[in-house]
Amino acid sequence: MEKIKVLEKILSANDRIAENLRRELKEKRILLVNIMGSPGCGKTSVIERTIKEMKDLKFGVIEGDIETTMDSERLSSLGIPVSQINTGPFGGDCHLESAWVSGAFEKLNSEGLNIVFIENIGNLVCPAEFDTGAHVNVVVLSTPEGEDKPLKYPLMFRTSHVMLINKIDLAVYLDVRVEKMKENARKINPGLVVFEISAKTGEGFSAWEEFLRDRWKNL
Amino acid sequence: MEKIKVLEKILSANDRIAENLRRELKEKRILLVNIMGSPGCGKTSVIERTIKEMKDLKFGVIEGDIETTMDSERLSSLGIPVSQINTGPFGGDCHLESAWVSGAFEKLNSEGLNIVFIENIGNLVCPAEFDTGAHVNVVVLSTPEGEDKPLKYPLMFRTSHVMLINKIDLAVYLDVRVEKMKENARKINPGLVVFEISAKTGEGFSAWEEFLRDRWKNL
Repeated sequence: MEKIKVLEKILSANDRIAENLRRELKEKRILLVNIMGSPGCGKTSVIERTIKEMKDLKFGVIEGDIETTMDSERLSSLGIPVSQINTGPFGGDCHLESAWVSGAFEKLNSEGLNIVFIENIGNLVCPAEFDTGAHVNVVVLSTPEGEDKPLKYPLMFRTSHVMLINKIDLAVYLDVRVEKMKENARKINPGLVVFEISAKTGEGFSAWEEFLRDRWKNL
Repeated sequence: MEKIKVLEKILSANDRIAENLRRELKEKRILLVNIMGSPGCGKTSVIERTIKEMKDLKFGVIEGDIETTMDSERLSSLGIPVSQINTGPFGGDCHLESAWVSGAFEKLNSEGLNIVFIENIGNLVCPAEFDTGAHVNVVVLSTPEGEDKPLKYPLMFRTSHVMLINKIDLAVYLDVRVEKMKENARKINPGLVVFEISAKTGEGFSAWEEFLRDRWKNL
């Protein structure tokens, strides 16, 4: 009971900070995009390819990680500003909160940026419980994870605006039914926008990039 | 701060219950095996094949899930006792605690069982923070998740006794280096026992099953 009360207090403060951040970034004409998904679904690779391909826009990344800076280093090598959040070995390590994102954004050299990606902690559960302040929530679900995941982790698919079905190039080697994966996701969230992509081959990226560009223009 | 204090209180109660459960099951000669891993790494499939193949032992399953009973139904069809824990849509949904496992065990028809699997919530972060009372902790890491995961989610690999590298049959289609995956895991936990398996083809299962049989005999 005490645990739940404390959690509620944290959540409402989190929501307030998230709303402020969202408004502030809208005024600055910066689109904040929160990328979520399981460990190994391809979050970093999706961000990497999107930034490399969309040369007409300027990107930054807020990188959430538990202990390492491996993904930050990989993304910094693209010559873009990256701000790292290490959630530490215990306590709040399984998700990102809006205050941390807000703090990381302040440290980011954001002058002239158009889109900032948040790479959330690899986890299909907890990140969905916390509003980060992003304008767009994206869940990356890779084909090897299986078609039942939207039903088993519904909150993630309910709070996401976009589902990227990644590693679509692997589907041919798997028993997964991609149509069923989409059907399950839309049972949870009928308004979900879905793109089938491969961060490895580039398949499907033009539609996803068009969506992003459009969201940024209409921010 | 308040959050952390509450968390500590929960943890020490959790550890006490876990110790009691572990002792109780040892006396009953039942080996409790906690299966953890990301969503879609193949936890249910590993449990399913192991039970089907090890006909000389009697199994039960404690199934952790957030909302659905899909995995329980799948495992019940093997004709074994299954006890379900639904962690609910909010609060403690990202992991299993020893009190819940203990309660689920009481509801399980455990007469004559040799090994009980706990299928934990699909999550590479939170389940590792809570002792469930299991004698053996197993992390299932599938090849599509990538070789860097032990470094990025170290607590999971530190608290596990066994790593099952699943979907080894897919490795040939991926850029993943399985040797590097093992090397990274052993950097975190030099004593980790590693098996390369495929729950789809059955590759590598005999060594894993031999390990389980041996642990049960020497409980």
